[in-house]
Amino acid sequence: MTDKLKVAVLGASGYTGSELVRLLLRHPRVELTALTADSRAGKGMAEVFAQFSGINLPTLVKIDELDLGGIDAIFCALPHATTQIVLKDLLAKKPSLKIVDLSADFRLEDPAAYEKWYGHAHQALDLQQEAVFGLVELYRDKIKGARLVANPGCHTTTSILPIVPLLKAGTIDADEIAIVSATGMSGAGRAAKEAMLFSEVSEGINAYGVGNHRHTSEFDQEYSKAAGHKVEASFTPLLVPMNRGILGTIHVRGDARKLHDVLSKTYAGEHFITVLPFGQTPHTRHIRGSNHVQIGVAADRREGRAIVISALDNLVKGASGQAIQNLNVMMGWPETTGIDQIALFP
Amino acid sequence: MTDKLKVAVLGASGYTGSELVRLLLRHPRVELTALTADSRAGKGMAEVFAQFSGINLPTLVKIDELDLGGIDAIFCALPHATTQIVLKDLLAKKPSLKIVDLSADFRLEDPAAYEKWYGHAHQALDLQQEAVFGLVELYRDKIKGARLVANPGCHTTTSILPIVPLLKAGTIDADEIAIVSATGMSGAGRAAKEAMLFSEVSEGINAYGVGNHRHTSEFDQEYSKAAGHKVEASFTPLLVPMNRGILGTIHVRGDARKLHDVLSKTYAGEHFITVLPFGQTPHTRHIRGSNHVQIGVAADRREGRAIVISALDNLVKGASGQAIQNLNVMMGWPETTGIDQIALFP
Amino acid sequence: MTDKLKVAVLGASGYTGSELVRLLLRHPRVELTALTADSRAGKGMAEVFAQFSGINLPTLVKIDELDLGGIDAIFCALPHATTQIVLKDLLAKKPSLKIVDLSADFRLEDPAAYEKWYGHAHQALDLQQEAVFGLVELYRDKIKGARLVANPGCHTTTSILPIVPLLKAGTIDADEIAIVSATGMSGAGRAAKEAMLFSEVSEGINAYGVGNHRHTSEFDQEYSKAAGHKVEASFTPLLVPMNRGILGTIHVRGDARKLHDVLSKTYAGEHFITVLPFGQTPHTRHIRGSNHVQIGVAADRREGRAIVISALDNLVKGASGQAIQNLNVMMGWPETTGIDQIALFP
Amino acid sequence: MTDKLKVAVLGASGYTGSELVRLLLRHPRVELTALTADSRAGKGMAEVFAQFSGINLPTLVKIDELDLGGIDAIFCALPHATTQIVLKDLLAKKPSLKIVDLSADFRLEDPAAYEKWYGHAHQALDLQQEAVFGLVELYRDKIKGARLVANPGCHTTTSILPIVPLLKAGTIDADEIAIVSATGMSGAGRAAKEAMLFSEVSEGINAYGVGNHRHTSEFDQEYSKAAGHKVEASFTPLLVPMNRGILGTIHVRGDARKLHDVLSKTYAGEHFITVLPFGQTPHTRHIRGSNHVQIGVAADRREGRAIVISALDNLVKGASGQAIQNLNVMMGWPETTGIDQIALFP
Repeated sequence: MTDKLKVAVLGASGYTGSELVRLLLRHPRVELTALTADSRAGKGMAEVFAQFSGINLPTLVKIDELDLGGIDAIFCALPHATTQIVLKDLLAKKPSLKIVDLSADFRLEDPAAYEKWYGHAHQALDLQQEAVFGLVELYRDKIKGARLVANPGCHTTTSILPIVPLLKAGTIDADEIAIVSATGMSGAGRAAKEAMLFSEVSEGINAYGVGNHRHTSEFDQEYSKAAGHKVEASFTPLLVPMNRGILGTIHVRGDARKLHDVLSKTYAGEHFITVLPFGQTPHTRHIRGSNHVQIGVAADRREGRAIVISALDNLVKGASGQAIQNLNVMMGWPETTGIDQIALFP
Repeated sequence: MTDKLKVAVLGASGYTGSELVRLLLRHPRVELTALTADSRAGKGMAEVFAQFSGINLPTLVKIDELDLGGIDAIFCALPHATTQIVLKDLLAKKPSLKIVDLSADFRLEDPAAYEKWYGHAHQALDLQQEAVFGLVELYRDKIKGARLVANPGCHTTTSILPIVPLLKAGTIDADEIAIVSATGMSGAGRAAKEAMLFSEVSEGINAYGVGNHRHTSEFDQEYSKAAGHKVEASFTPLLVPMNRGILGTIHVRGDARKLHDVLSKTYAGEHFITVLPFGQTPHTRHIRGSNHVQIGVAADRREGRAIVISALDNLVKGASGQAIQNLNVMMGWPETTGIDQIALFP
Repeated sequence: MTDKLKVAVLGASGYTGSELVRLLLRHPRVELTALTADSRAGKGMAEVFAQFSGINLPTLVKIDELDLGGIDAIFCALPHATTQIVLKDLLAKKPSLKIVDLSADFRLEDPAAYEKWYGHAHQALDLQQEAVFGLVELYRDKIKGARLVANPGCHTTTSILPIVPLLKAGTIDADEIAIVSATGMSGAGRAAKEAMLFSEVSEGINAYGVGNHRHTSEFDQEYSKAAGHKVEASFTPLLVPMNRGILGTIHVRGDARKLHDVLSKTYAGEHFITVLPFGQTPHTRHIRGSNHVQIGVAADRREGRAIVISALDNLVKGASGQAIQNLNVMMGWPETTGIDQIALFP
Repeated sequence: MTDKLKVAVLGASGYTGSELVRLLLRHPRVELTALTADSRAGKGMAEVFAQFSGINLPTLVKIDELDLGGIDAIFCALPHATTQIVLKDLLAKKPSLKIVDLSADFRLEDPAAYEKWYGHAHQALDLQQEAVFGLVELYRDKIKGARLVANPGCHTTTSILPIVPLLKAGTIDADEIAIVSATGMSGAGRAAKEAMLFSEVSEGINAYGVGNHRHTSEFDQEYSKAAGHKVEASFTPLLVPMNRGILGTIHVRGDARKLHDVLSKTYAGEHFITVLPFGQTPHTRHIRGSNHVQIGVAADRREGRAIVISALDNLVKGASGQAIQNLNVMMGWPETTGIDQIALFP
């Protein structure tokens, strides 16, 4: 046991926190050393999530009670804005920590962009500059040497993976990207809000954050870098009556066959990404509970137009699974360690 | 009772058939005189749909057994292609029949378009020319005098209602219309197919008919008529794990405020259409079981772009409710007769 | 319009409140005059429940702001304990009011039983004695002359209707009644609680209030009255991932055929109750949105044992529909007025 | 790799088959050597279940095409009745095979009981006598030396585990056991039947096989053995609109505290069984996708009565997970090998 990496999960009482615990419990090179949840401190994890009944886990503590001496790495699943203050403090106390942050705080490189979308100046600018955007398939080399990795959002992971290679290759019109991204409810978190009650959500579908969703800023950053000039996509998220899964449906201008070729080649060696045969498109249920992404490309009946569809599990590849994939890369471990489950279907 | 209209429902064993029966049973000017279902002939309706247990209804018969003498009007909920042969025959026998057809057979005016999308020549060209496209809010005057009305499809009703007025007014770019239309499972009908089993559908979302869905032909026809020139939109339908409801999410180019003005004015006097305040967008659960349509318009963060979202119940305004609305107009009755229910929520 | 009954709904911002409004809007002899919701006072009903968008309704007010002068009858959908204080006050101010109360406050005749189950002395003992238990099929005659009717609970309506006639007839062993009553989530109300979030409820089933649910007291009262001696049944409620519907599965000792005969005869003339053919059992989806009850009886493979299964919609026959049925009887109107909808299936 | 056990899955195109493949792919001591599915022979597993896209698996073959030479052990997930003929033949050809059978064919020891419940004489009586009932926690010692293990049914596993120890200890009245067992839809299999369509199942609940379900015979056998005399329980299964999970709600006569003591002691050392603190009862969502069972005991308000509630995943502990647990025991491997996943929640 002594050679295992000692890991803490900050914010273990939310869904991304419990998903980290689910996966890390079966990760062969990690020891779960501490779990924090300020509002539930003192409770056992099984009191907060009954799926852990009968399993040995550290008691929940407050962040202030963390004993950093015994901790090598941290997964941070805290709310936006709080995160930058907490992590600045922890790294000041122990600069050798390895950190994967699941909040939005360190995803944007440009302080001005952060301020515009989040409404306040960033409180840890040095760290913001240091942080690496944690989309492994795009930034694997940078992540290897990183101390602080900013895990990308679930909607953005879904639609960055299929579109960035196309922008890099110049095979689509950067000005005409229309994304409709349908997500299950676990992406909305565990806060008790009327709009998230079963009776309000079940048997219905709706859009939210229409025209101006905050995560658009991640698209802007990555699409623009890929294209080499400023790109702004249109993006509308939908809420679907299911627990897990995101389906990105993206209408673009470009030759569908070429798009398929570019994506097939780009991701040929990637364990977690499957580009389906031309014309086939994915179902979210086939990646539920797994770290896999399935991408499909089909031709529109209008020449020069294509539909790209991308599916992943918002809590795994869209959050906690990708966070562990990042840790694996940071530590130089085989990238699939602990996150190689097959999807749970049905 | 003698002054009630005597009505037959052809294809009463499908979901649009049972929905017609549900609504017509409480329609004050209609008497349900005959129900057909060739594969279930001889059975009671309650054997096929247990929600009718304890309710007095005609026994299911085969179409050949229909006594046309006692029938004034017909709702036809038969499969595509079969329909044109059946209705040609019935109208030959009794030309005075009033007919609302829920299939796709008479929706396209152009025989060439029909042949292209459906793969065979139309078998009742005279009727095809005679038929009126049954979108009441657009064609009310033509429907008044019609003998044969072609009830439009559910996806198309959802996205024709908000877009046609914009094309007529010239407020959007006709070349850049990208529709993602998410539908509940009842739209897929009652045929026993593996892909429609609960265990296959639940907890997942996927696209289908990508790039080339047949109903696109209805968009082409109506959008082109509205614009005054050929228009082809991009259209991707999604299947959502819920029973009823369609949400159309439509990315367009145009000034969002102007779009909202046009739609608000166009539908100001329409009982069944509500244009929500600017920036608000609809949830399908708020129109479940009702004949109402809710439409919202929001600005994209890019100037000159907008998102239009439209919601209706695929079995009511998207099929059987609209069919009764058509009959009401054909007969000169108040348009809301028998179809004025409030949505069932939750 | 002037001869319509002027009706107020107290507690219109909950699900039973909105269900009352849905049904009363299409009730031909009722005018919705006032709606109260203390926490949402000043808002329009469509702001609280978007299914009422575009429909003309009184603005929500506080109970204190009610103008009793213009009100003839009240549906009270307030929380337990609050209700007895509010109604005592209103009846003191205007003794001629007709009231149907949907809370538990006036269901128990025995003050000691109330105190035992609800933990405090009843604050309106006179009204408690006056109130009539509003299960129309059992107490129609008493309800006719009543001023205050206590609408029964949803679980209890489901399992009182099939069991009381059997106890009256002496055809089952009163000591061995085991009820498992599975309900949809709308029965839990609209309060924002973590345990009621979509992500917590979906794709799972569980029991609650095991061994000691408060509504057991209603069973005790009605079963004991029917049997002529003290009866205590076992009762376990389950929460099911669906919006509406209750299914009561009741294991009893008795001859199944005889049970079926007794129930068939008892309910032969009842519009809202269907006893299915022997051996058939109901599905809740076939009564969704309607005021109907379906009851089935099957033989256990052990002689002298039977399974009785009962299904209704918890928001309609289990709450708001039955409340209107009570008003219809109180007013001497046809009992089905305004509540004769067919179930919404699928 | 050469020392891995070579395993075939017969009937890989059903849900228990795909669940076996999901789990065995990550089992460190097993090599998946062959997959059969007569109706899909020649196809890749990913064509039948898209969650296996990108994963290397043997092509589906017919049973007749199996090369037994390279196979050490078989999981058989074929339909009832077919199974006994197939396995008789395979064991005749290669007597050294280790077999775990997931059908009902070898669960009943008594040929007369089999004939009564299944309507025909058993075709492999020798094997029926040889087979061991594969409920590991009850029959671990017998399973160790077994060649053929009959994996128990999902409803029966759910309600045998909590009740058998109580009957052995004599703490409940064997004559008064009333089971209501609510299952998700995956238990009904992948056959395309109208009653299993999403639109038929969603938003509703119903009983099936009322009074005389075949699996009752497994209860009879195990309960009678445990009690030492003939026991017949009452058993009603319910279908719930969710994919996975079974909740057994069992009303019994006995002292609740004593029952809890017996179960706590019996299962204290069992990895896969958690007896919750007295008065707490389980939710199926907390065992979804895992091999765990959670059991709760609560007191009825009537003295001498108790409610026992048991939850497991019908496809894992109720089928494929338990089958692998059986193989692990047969092979002398650590019992949790390959099946130690935490539940997927939400």
